[in-house]
Amino acid sequence: MLVPILKQEHCLIASIQGELSDAELLLLRDQLVAQVRQHRSRGVVIDVTVLDIMDSFAARTLRSIAQMTKLLGAQTVIAGIQPEVAMSMVQLGLTLDHAMIAMDLEDGLALLRTRGARENDVGHQP
Amino acid sequence: MLVPILKQEHCLIASIQGELSDAELLLLRDQLVAQVRQHRSRGVVIDVTVLDIMDSFAARTLRSIAQMTKLLGAQTVIAGIQPEVAMSMVQLGLTLDHAMIAMDLEDGLALLRTRGARENDVGHQP
Repeated sequence: MLVPILKQEHCLIASIQGELSDAELLLLRDQLVAQVRQHRSRGVVIDVTVLDIMDSFAARTLRSIAQMTKLLGAQTVIAGIQPEVAMSMVQLGLTLDHAMIAMDLEDGLALLRTRGARENDVGHQP
Repeated sequence: MLVPILKQEHCLIASIQGELSDAELLLLRDQLVAQVRQHRSRGVVIDVTVLDIMDSFAARTLRSIAQMTKLLGAQTVIAGIQPEVAMSMVQLGLTLDHAMIAMDLEDGLALLRTRGARENDVGHQP
């Protein structure tokens, strides 16, 4: 299942529509990295609302995406983690370092907007 | 291949023109540290756009430069990391701690300018 990637102003939105295979996760990573560069995006929101499971490969791939986009100058936000997913992630010791977390897509975009506004005012944080 | 270092107001710009040997990287480090001191620079932008590979020595040297210049009061920005370089850096576990990241040279200088403006408003950050 391919993940549609939408461009909205300076952000990219990847809205996951169903469970993804490992290969599909890697494809999502490669596409996001390429599009961040192409569109000079400032932020990426990955909406994981529909996922009711997050295995170690998925968590690792999301972490990689966050790290890679950061090296390109864009902040990644993971939005919509379900409570059961959050619980199992903690129990399995899975983390999402380098990414910011938001309740849902709307919250994620707001986060990037306020972050962008702050950076325009007072400079980027590393 | 020597790296030209340009002075622009309170910033130094090191524009890498091609692959650098380990010795050339160390020379760049030494020159930047000396010039930050000499010109009392507030920021350094290292433009790595032309690099299509970043090995562990290069990443470590860039990290050192960022740490050293920070101790002299100047923020280092690494600008123009290519998507493939970002991907391989994450896969190899290479990081650029202490440096800020910008999309390109222009973005890097803007980052330092807004950062400088903030510091003038609210006092320097350590």
